[in-house]
Amino acid sequence: MIRHTVSFTLKHPAGSDAERVFLEAALVLAAIPGVQQFERLRQVSAKTDLAFGFSMAFADQAAYDAYNAHPDHVAFVRDRWVPEVERFQELDYIAL
Amino acid sequence: MIRHTVSFTLKHPAGSDAERVFLEAALVLAAIPGVQQFERLRQVSAKTDLAFGFSMAFADQAAYDAYNAHPDHVAFVRDRWVPEVERFQELDYIAL
Repeated sequence: MIRHTVSFTLKHPAGSDAERVFLEAALVLAAIPGVQQFERLRQVSAKTDLAFGFSMAFADQAAYDAYNAHPDHVAFVRDRWVPEVERFQELDYIAL
Repeated sequence: MIRHTVSFTLKHPAGSDAERVFLEAALVLAAIPGVQQFERLRQVSAKTDLAFGFSMAFADQAAYDAYNAHPDHVAFVRDRWVPEVERFQELDYIAL
């Protein structure tokens, strides 16, 4: 299993309608084949200045690659992520 | 639930005995009351230069606070984390 996480802050003000719409739009990712355990999270450590996180799991690299290439993911990145995310950090994990 | 994660790189060379000993020593944290779903992970995204991750969950802030104050955690930070970790990033998550 590969756990893919991305933590991010949006350009939109906290609590705004635009923020809510972005977070709802992200649900399209949960429906992409191979995506497991999709979660939308709030990042609450004061030690890192990022507001949200998405976390998901893939059975293997092939499933992860298929996700990255999926039209819904490509469109989300192009139409939502790039224009609306201020900064982000990706961390992917496998068992030790 | 609060998911507490810390991603890090050690001062020790990759694959060294010292690295292995550190990662084994971290198992003391899994036994601290209130710690759930303790995982030792390898961080594999090329987009972030951190080698490992620890992830765990707490039922609530009280359990998290108790963990932070626990003598085994305090000792691990003092005797292992501070001397042996090169750099790290903490990210804590709750449901959106």
